[in-house]
Amino acid sequence: MKGKWIILLLPLLPGCVDATAKETMSKAQATFKPIPAQAPAIKGNEATKAKVDLGRMLFFDPRLSTSQLISCNTCHNVGLGGADLQETSVGHGWQKGPRNAPTVFNAVYNVAQFWDGRAKDLQTQAKGPVQASVEMNSNPELVVRTLKNIPGYPALFEAAFPGYRDPVTFDNMAKAIEVFEATLVTPDAPFDHFLNGEPSALNAREQTGLGVFMEKGCAACHGGINIGGAAYYPFGVREIPTAEIRPESDTGRFKVTNTASDKYVFRAPSLRNVALTQPYFHSGKVWSLKDAVVVMGSAQLGMKLNETEVNDTVAFLKSLTGKQPKIDYPLLPPSSDQTPHPQLK
Amino acid sequence: MKGKWIILLLPLLPGCVDATAKETMSKAQATFKPIPAQAPAIKGNEATKAKVDLGRMLFFDPRLSTSQLISCNTCHNVGLGGADLQETSVGHGWQKGPRNAPTVFNAVYNVAQFWDGRAKDLQTQAKGPVQASVEMNSNPELVVRTLKNIPGYPALFEAAFPGYRDPVTFDNMAKAIEVFEATLVTPDAPFDHFLNGEPSALNAREQTGLGVFMEKGCAACHGGINIGGAAYYPFGVREIPTAEIRPESDTGRFKVTNTASDKYVFRAPSLRNVALTQPYFHSGKVWSLKDAVVVMGSAQLGMKLNETEVNDTVAFLKSLTGKQPKIDYPLLPPSSDQTPHPQLK
Repeated sequence: MKGKWIILLLPLLPGCVDATAKETMSKAQATFKPIPAQAPAIKGNEATKAKVDLGRMLFFDPRLSTSQLISCNTCHNVGLGGADLQETSVGHGWQKGPRNAPTVFNAVYNVAQFWDGRAKDLQTQAKGPVQASVEMNSNPELVVRTLKNIPGYPALFEAAFPGYRDPVTFDNMAKAIEVFEATLVTPDAPFDHFLNGEPSALNAREQTGLGVFMEKGCAACHGGINIGGAAYYPFGVREIPTAEIRPESDTGRFKVTNTASDKYVFRAPSLRNVALTQPYFHSGKVWSLKDAVVVMGSAQLGMKLNETEVNDTVAFLKSLTGKQPKIDYPLLPPSSDQTPHPQLK
Repeated sequence: MKGKWIILLLPLLPGCVDATAKETMSKAQATFKPIPAQAPAIKGNEATKAKVDLGRMLFFDPRLSTSQLISCNTCHNVGLGGADLQETSVGHGWQKGPRNAPTVFNAVYNVAQFWDGRAKDLQTQAKGPVQASVEMNSNPELVVRTLKNIPGYPALFEAAFPGYRDPVTFDNMAKAIEVFEATLVTPDAPFDHFLNGEPSALNAREQTGLGVFMEKGCAACHGGINIGGAAYYPFGVREIPTAEIRPESDTGRFKVTNTASDKYVFRAPSLRNVALTQPYFHSGKVWSLKDAVVVMGSAQLGMKLNETEVNDTVAFLKSLTGKQPKIDYPLLPPSSDQTPHPQLK
């Protein structure tokens, strides 16, 4: 008797699966957006080839740091998902910085930069680490003096910023880096193909995980084009994470706004390429994606996700890994006798 | 009367210049060799595409260091002439190493590696900095455990070393790095074109400098394909340089051979791309190429070169800058939950 029922039901199954997939897809399409193939334009900062090329050089040039050892790429390694592998980044003098380095990939789609959103765009962001004493430990005067005394750079700045009387400036350094960083997008993740109408781009488990992600409430903070990165939320809405994961001393956006309601508030990170950017959270204290999902469940949703839900969610998160940017390592203009020397102290 | 002579002599001048150029060229061709366009083969270590690609990844992978912050490229920056800009390299814990980092470019043509020649080839060399406590501070066991627990690597090692039962080994890491490094050659310097029979590849000043370089005796140690790199010589044959430039504690090759005659003996460095690799000498204490030429004159030749000789020599040395290798930044296989974590201490 049982055997017969199975035979009768089998022809219906593909249709059922399709219907579920289509429903999941419709919901997903209303919540998320695929990454466009083309890098976005920056208002007021045109991405000419000369400027992008200059930005790529500056991104890789350790001479933006006083030690001449640390470049943007040190903590935002383009071969490692646009981040480093450190709990919190290590900078000048081997000092540990206060927070985990967010990936530079797709950062152009974030509402603002840094975990606390204190930089409104990539251009403003780029000036931060260059000057931070625990990162590159430099200052605008030294950066400009260095760039002006590396014989190849002035002509490259002139080409990137035509019409400027004095093109080698700290602002223009940041503008060039911004347009280069805006090219660091990762389209073509399996999930992007799914959002673009290909149900087979995600397997059954990934689709189930996507369902969990939307139903349990993760997508409320992690939605949109960057699956996050669009707004600020308290870390520990329902349950305060351990002091290791959410150190008491780092009050997040409160340090920027000095507003009580911003205590322990952070920008929800983008989850794109999240499988590549361990460890997790602003403290970098959680190494496995599975553990990170469990922490999010309790801290933000007040629920204990079961083993299957966690595994399915992780499977879905892995489908957010997109096509990584291919980058030619730039040949940097050589130093000269006039270039300031590195300072390690 | 004078005017007439000038008019009479003028038609002869180009012929005179040609004769001098030809003589200089013949002498140079007997002393130096151009860099071939193609990277040299390594005996017993075939450069398959899979192996070179793997070597490129390993060269850029900071996970060969315990901190997961330092890669081969940190001190041998392919955008900066294959070296760093430090007096002596900075490694684990911001420690200063004992000697200036020699460029990796054209290193395959050196008789042996390191300033004291203690590694017979690039394969042996590659194992040194990985294990040095002041550099990458790792060990073969940790490196192999790390590489085996980065899910993408085992298949890449299998492809690079087909037929090995256990391809992920410390030796194979070094072999892959060696074949990649052997591709880092810089042909097509103006001087190579000159050696290949194009007199106009060097201007008059550069040719005069080349003449000084050969006549005064520089070429005795800095000859051959690498304009150096072929043999060992005491630093301070005629005059002992200052203790800053030749620190008393670094006895050079004596540390390797324990032979009295090897005290303060070093491998003559290659002068290819020397204009890109300041600062100079094993101590890295001399920043300008001009000063370096003056030091060499007194220390090795026992002579005070005059201003013109120094400037002409520098002009010639600048003609040794070749076509820098173009390198795609490799996408590194991502870490997993099993990958050992970075250790900063």
